[in-house]
Amino acid sequence: MELSLPKGTRDFLPEDKIVRDKIVALLKETFELYGYNPLETPALENFETLSNKFAGGSEILKEVYTLEDQGKRKLGLRYDLTVPFARVIAMNQTIKKPFKRYQIDRVWRDGPIKLGRYREFWQCDADVVGIKSMAADAEILSLASAFFKKLDLKVTIFVNNRKLMNSLLDFSLIPKEKQESTILSIDKLKKVGVDAVRKELEENKLSDDSIAKVLSVFEISESSNEKLLNRLDEILENKEGIRELKELLNYAKQFSLDNVKLDISLARGLAYYTSTVLEVFMDDETIKSSLAAGGRFDKMIGNFLGAKEEIPAVGMSFGLDVLTDAIKLSKKSDGKKSVVEVYIAPIKALNESIIILDKLRKAGIKADMDFSSKNITKNLDFADKLKIPYIMIIGEDEIKKNKIKLKNMASGKEEILSVEEIIGRVKNEA
Amino acid sequence: MELSLPKGTRDFLPEDKIVRDKIVALLKETFELYGYNPLETPALENFETLSNKFAGGSEILKEVYTLEDQGKRKLGLRYDLTVPFARVIAMNQTIKKPFKRYQIDRVWRDGPIKLGRYREFWQCDADVVGIKSMAADAEILSLASAFFKKLDLKVTIFVNNRKLMNSLLDFSLIPKEKQESTILSIDKLKKVGVDAVRKELEENKLSDDSIAKVLSVFEISESSNEKLLNRLDEILENKEGIRELKELLNYAKQFSLDNVKLDISLARGLAYYTSTVLEVFMDDETIKSSLAAGGRFDKMIGNFLGAKEEIPAVGMSFGLDVLTDAIKLSKKSDGKKSVVEVYIAPIKALNESIIILDKLRKAGIKADMDFSSKNITKNLDFADKLKIPYIMIIGEDEIKKNKIKLKNMASGKEEILSVEEIIGRVKNEA
Repeated sequence: MELSLPKGTRDFLPEDKIVRDKIVALLKETFELYGYNPLETPALENFETLSNKFAGGSEILKEVYTLEDQGKRKLGLRYDLTVPFARVIAMNQTIKKPFKRYQIDRVWRDGPIKLGRYREFWQCDADVVGIKSMAADAEILSLASAFFKKLDLKVTIFVNNRKLMNSLLDFSLIPKEKQESTILSIDKLKKVGVDAVRKELEENKLSDDSIAKVLSVFEISESSNEKLLNRLDEILENKEGIRELKELLNYAKQFSLDNVKLDISLARGLAYYTSTVLEVFMDDETIKSSLAAGGRFDKMIGNFLGAKEEIPAVGMSFGLDVLTDAIKLSKKSDGKKSVVEVYIAPIKALNESIIILDKLRKAGIKADMDFSSKNITKNLDFADKLKIPYIMIIGEDEIKKNKIKLKNMASGKEEILSVEEIIGRVKNEA
Repeated sequence: MELSLPKGTRDFLPEDKIVRDKIVALLKETFELYGYNPLETPALENFETLSNKFAGGSEILKEVYTLEDQGKRKLGLRYDLTVPFARVIAMNQTIKKPFKRYQIDRVWRDGPIKLGRYREFWQCDADVVGIKSMAADAEILSLASAFFKKLDLKVTIFVNNRKLMNSLLDFSLIPKEKQESTILSIDKLKKVGVDAVRKELEENKLSDDSIAKVLSVFEISESSNEKLLNRLDEILENKEGIRELKELLNYAKQFSLDNVKLDISLARGLAYYTSTVLEVFMDDETIKSSLAAGGRFDKMIGNFLGAKEEIPAVGMSFGLDVLTDAIKLSKKSDGKKSVVEVYIAPIKALNESIIILDKLRKAGIKADMDFSSKNITKNLDFADKLKIPYIMIIGEDEIKKNKIKLKNMASGKEEILSVEEIIGRVKNEA
């Protein structure tokens, strides 16, 4: 039998999983600092839930892995964490709002495989339901900023507002029914340039006048967010988007954010955004695609629930794969192949070495030991290959005197220390 | 549309997820202290891998959720973490051995639903490949013991050895072809009692002499593990199992374990165990089923790989559901509905309160705030319902003087403190 993995899926061996776990732990820590609570939903959902017309839409439905259980019920693997979140809100109407939840979990999409696209991957989402104020949107920006600071990655958070975008399209005399498709074209301005976008707009059969207007309007640029908003304020009739952005930027200031930049061409593909949209990019462009993105979606959950009134919601999603790539390419990963801090190589004294091993672990040191009586060369090689920082070499004589050889594998430095001194040394360096 | 969850699956709202996350974090911490490294494998496996004849066997195959991808490849959701582990070993032959890995992840079984049995659930496995020495088995016992100490649950680890069991069956003149089924009957001694087991053995067409012998032999009991082994040593010809158990118990002593008990009727259902088997039970029987179990399986991985030689392996699995139940029933869970430590109720001073909120978070305090200008009664009620320990009430005057009211929600005690004092207070109590 030729063993293989299903197409678009991956194993993460320790070297990679250690990095991913570290990112997940930082996300969890940040989400919780910001008052988001953990929620878990099953991987399997009823197909009916996933295919709800206010959920992901027909395009994504083509990519759902479907299956049947023994009772012939049609199920599917979830393709995102937002639809299950909406289902949870619908099924638990007694949940106190505002409800802030995060979920870091797998999703599946049986789609085409490209560089960096997989069929099984992780999403890391934080969303809050029940707050209309732009303070909640600003808090999301603060959360993103805090997280990337912890990761030691320099980023800029680009923001925009769908209502502003609609006003700009109205101003450019784009007919309502073509505004959604025009937004998708405008969204590509940075990626493909103005000529390619012009071509798309022409193919979309917009009038020459509208095309000229829309391109000139989306080219407006100013030295600060405030100046840009003030200039738009002069030309636009519908000022709701501008008002929301001013509010957002005011709250962002209270959160002492200095890396938020208004980008009026930023749209985000998803049709369910109703107000704020945001996208996070690395300043040094080590990774060109966005590391995280999100926005406000005040209609989607209410629609999903069949509720009469809007249920305001805002949130963002971090991509675990792109974050891992960013860490690796920025050389912020130490390439460790093992979590072990100290490896014990016993020379005969197996029983006595186990007692020392046990002491290290009880002191909180990640320790491991050779149980197979290998020789020292082999044990040194093992610790070296796995990039374990320290090795302890323990013979009977060393134990009697409590003088044990500790070797720093990186520097090669050897010291003779007591077990207690070794514990202090390793804990100090961790 | 009537929203529902697929049968046998569950949502975990924050109240439950917080407890589960805490258990998972403790498991992760313990696994890593013991030198196990994290591994992740995909939820989806090729059906061919899952149905390998040396994998879980035909009974479990009936419970596999199967599906097809767009390329019509037959896939399945994994039913355990051991088969994927064996596949990883097979596909990555350069992995340095011994290879210690843990995986805390979902598995799926489309089987009958009973109390405490679900179709989507989590397994928490730690296994090591490549160590023959019983020191590795003893280390697994030490790991279990350390974990339950962290959880503050009193448990006993029951151990046995398949080779000893086979010797006892030989001694009882049970024919080889009936030993496996006899083991399954003997395994039930504690649960169903001697009469029910006798009946099963009779139905299995064992001779009266064999039945009498096997029941008397498995009733042997002594005041200590050592005495029991010595007594068995007197009657058995094949002493391999006894030798291994003596070795195991010697190493367990080096690990200072005092809660390991030899139970010669303990079998564990899985046919792939070849030597040590173990099962962990609560001393006060709050939960009657085992909280964790495992053993040595020296043949399974080699068979799976089609290797000529044995690939020794030993490991154990913790059940997240049963652990959660144990914590809840032992009242070790504080029933928190939110991770938030401090909730801010601003009176008008929204901007200024955001600055304080930001300070708390930057100091590492899990903080949240009302952004919707609710009145104090509503905010107190919100914090109370979610069992948030502290609420801060902030008005403009309080901010000017840096004298802010901190209310302890459990005791009702109110104090007027500076932001810095509040940070100190909350961090002290966490």
